[in-house]
Amino acid sequence: MSKKNVIVAQSGGPTVAINASLAGVLDAALRNENYETVYGSVYGILGILEDHLINLNEQVEKNPEFINTLKVSPAMYLGSCRYKLPDYENDDATYEFIFKQFEKYNVGAFFYIGGNDSMDTVLKLSHYGKQIGSDIRVIGIPKTIDNDLCITDHTPGYGSAAKYVASSILEVAHDTFIYSVKSVTIVEIMGRDAGWLTAASALARNEYNSAPHLIYFPEVAFDKEAFIADVKDQLSKRNNVIIAVSEGIRDKEGNYISATTATNDQFGHSQLSGTGKCLEYLIKDSIGVKVRSIELNVLQRCAAHISSLTDLNESFALGSHAVECAVNGQTKCMLTLNRVSDKPYEITIGTADIQGIANEAKSIPREWINEAGNDITDALHDYMAPLIEGEPIVKYNNGLPVYLPVGHLDAGK
Amino acid sequence: MSKKNVIVAQSGGPTVAINASLAGVLDAALRNENYETVYGSVYGILGILEDHLINLNEQVEKNPEFINTLKVSPAMYLGSCRYKLPDYENDDATYEFIFKQFEKYNVGAFFYIGGNDSMDTVLKLSHYGKQIGSDIRVIGIPKTIDNDLCITDHTPGYGSAAKYVASSILEVAHDTFIYSVKSVTIVEIMGRDAGWLTAASALARNEYNSAPHLIYFPEVAFDKEAFIADVKDQLSKRNNVIIAVSEGIRDKEGNYISATTATNDQFGHSQLSGTGKCLEYLIKDSIGVKVRSIELNVLQRCAAHISSLTDLNESFALGSHAVECAVNGQTKCMLTLNRVSDKPYEITIGTADIQGIANEAKSIPREWINEAGNDITDALHDYMAPLIEGEPIVKYNNGLPVYLPVGHLDAGK
Repeated sequence: MSKKNVIVAQSGGPTVAINASLAGVLDAALRNENYETVYGSVYGILGILEDHLINLNEQVEKNPEFINTLKVSPAMYLGSCRYKLPDYENDDATYEFIFKQFEKYNVGAFFYIGGNDSMDTVLKLSHYGKQIGSDIRVIGIPKTIDNDLCITDHTPGYGSAAKYVASSILEVAHDTFIYSVKSVTIVEIMGRDAGWLTAASALARNEYNSAPHLIYFPEVAFDKEAFIADVKDQLSKRNNVIIAVSEGIRDKEGNYISATTATNDQFGHSQLSGTGKCLEYLIKDSIGVKVRSIELNVLQRCAAHISSLTDLNESFALGSHAVECAVNGQTKCMLTLNRVSDKPYEITIGTADIQGIANEAKSIPREWINEAGNDITDALHDYMAPLIEGEPIVKYNNGLPVYLPVGHLDAGK
Repeated sequence: MSKKNVIVAQSGGPTVAINASLAGVLDAALRNENYETVYGSVYGILGILEDHLINLNEQVEKNPEFINTLKVSPAMYLGSCRYKLPDYENDDATYEFIFKQFEKYNVGAFFYIGGNDSMDTVLKLSHYGKQIGSDIRVIGIPKTIDNDLCITDHTPGYGSAAKYVASSILEVAHDTFIYSVKSVTIVEIMGRDAGWLTAASALARNEYNSAPHLIYFPEVAFDKEAFIADVKDQLSKRNNVIIAVSEGIRDKEGNYISATTATNDQFGHSQLSGTGKCLEYLIKDSIGVKVRSIELNVLQRCAAHISSLTDLNESFALGSHAVECAVNGQTKCMLTLNRVSDKPYEITIGTADIQGIANEAKSIPREWINEAGNDITDALHDYMAPLIEGEPIVKYNNGLPVYLPVGHLDAGK
């Protein structure tokens, strides 16, 4: 069998672990005798459509630390896109072009690292490939901080984001506990449809820190009166109450708490308030206690200096494993993590048909949230705890973490 | 001379380095033959007024790692207060009580670690002590992330906050550079009256990252039209523009950009928008590009896991030095850092009369901001750069940084 090349791309929202999967693909493909050149497609699938590829072998040759540094660098080295392929029944010109590109670059396998939308691309390309009798392997490697992909036990990127959330809550607790004045602090956490990341706030609890004292999830309808009662109850027990809330909480009619908040600022523009801000003003008005809201924002998905080594190692392993799968002839599949046990933590890597994964989402099972809907259960704690374990070695230069340059900008120089 | 005891307290807003100064005082006092017991006053000066002291010698005996872990723990181990002493001309009962407490605990020296308001307390206690002929030393140890104290070259806590700001900007840049779609990202940074911390965003620049592309300070009057022109100009040069802005920017009439933004949320409450949010909507409306604002919030002052070793070491040294000063008979003074040179970075520790420091604030000199008022100069870069250097060893347990329990809660158990 003559040697083939591979193309790898990244798509969707950034995580701290998505470059670790890229590093895993690159490392395994370079070592594998079936493959020659690894091309990175810039801005996801768009790089193939626009013929914008980076030769990653050259990057490794230039920089012997390339793969190690890539593994700990945040966001996407190759850039991302939010592009959904058209249905091939309606528009097979796009597909025809993509497979012509594969031919042009002598591609044996295409790896797409991403979330739900990216798995849709894997599904469509696999289908089309089968239809035209192509033997190019099309394989998905999951990632999302939201942890909402089906079949896989958890998603690469989630563990690091969870670690960031938990450590931030712990540090905010230290910041909050210093005053004798009663106060409420609301921390708004990402997760539009699933509360996995918000749940991770509970990992901040230790022998001296009981925060967060209340947790609210998109999975449970938000009730304003119950919320106020919860906060009053907590304030009767302690000086400083810390609340973790998902940005995606909704009332029982399904309306986002944040979405109905239309406001006007000084320049006369309409604003949409964040969920945390909304709850801040609700407490201020109904209880009158000192209150502050904090939005953790994009640092949840890009603070690579405090990533989880477990997460990075798993992400890297999925990348390597994807290359093996391609060599073994697998296609139309996504790599999965399967849990063997919580304590000691043990997982295996497998694959699943992409059909049952793309365009599906996984919420927290209701039984992993307490009855009142304002805290997690022990089962959810045991599920999450191992995922934030371990710290990668991050080098510092001039006082700042050393990451790889953003590749498509750097290589374009 | 018979042995005396000391009282130490912390006050004002938290920083990552204020416990390092406490550790320095504790370490030096325990080693010094003139002193016996180190008492920590809980909730700043209030602990003396309410007779709520912690015996820190006992904490060190219980936990041999106490001083080392204290050095890297965020916020205040002893808790804080926002309490301003009354003028002693009007109310000398408070002062009489404090000095009676000093007598009761056989106190030879009182150390107050804090910002501007805390130095006011040092000033008043020194004055009163002199008036009654007390030989108790009253010494201030500076701290504030704002870096706005006079006389000292910089303030403990600033370097760590600056490191957090710079590394966050770098990580946000990675997060932002992944899309081909044009965008503006606004990062709002603490600093109501001085732009020192906002200026630190510029330290994120390196060989591949040119962000932040624009920086706005409280020291320069904010002009809406000039701002829009600046952003348009940047968008003509690059896809993804990142802006660092101080929460305290004001228009030429002196009105805070954030303060005039009164809005109403879904529950009918009036809201005050953040500065970043305000600029976000201004850009959305005037330029129509994709725009996001991020408020770094309290993590700037409590993310101890990414603190500056230079900052922690200096803070510790100031604490130790304060004990020496007390032994040598100094009082009514604040410890200061004096810069010898930028490259190589070298400082000495000194003291200054508290009179010229309390209730004064230090802004960025205008010549350290560029002419257009939207970036720093090289001189400011060289001033800041050494302050974020070095990383302390932070231990992790269960995936999270190991800090000391919040002392007043823990000791109260």
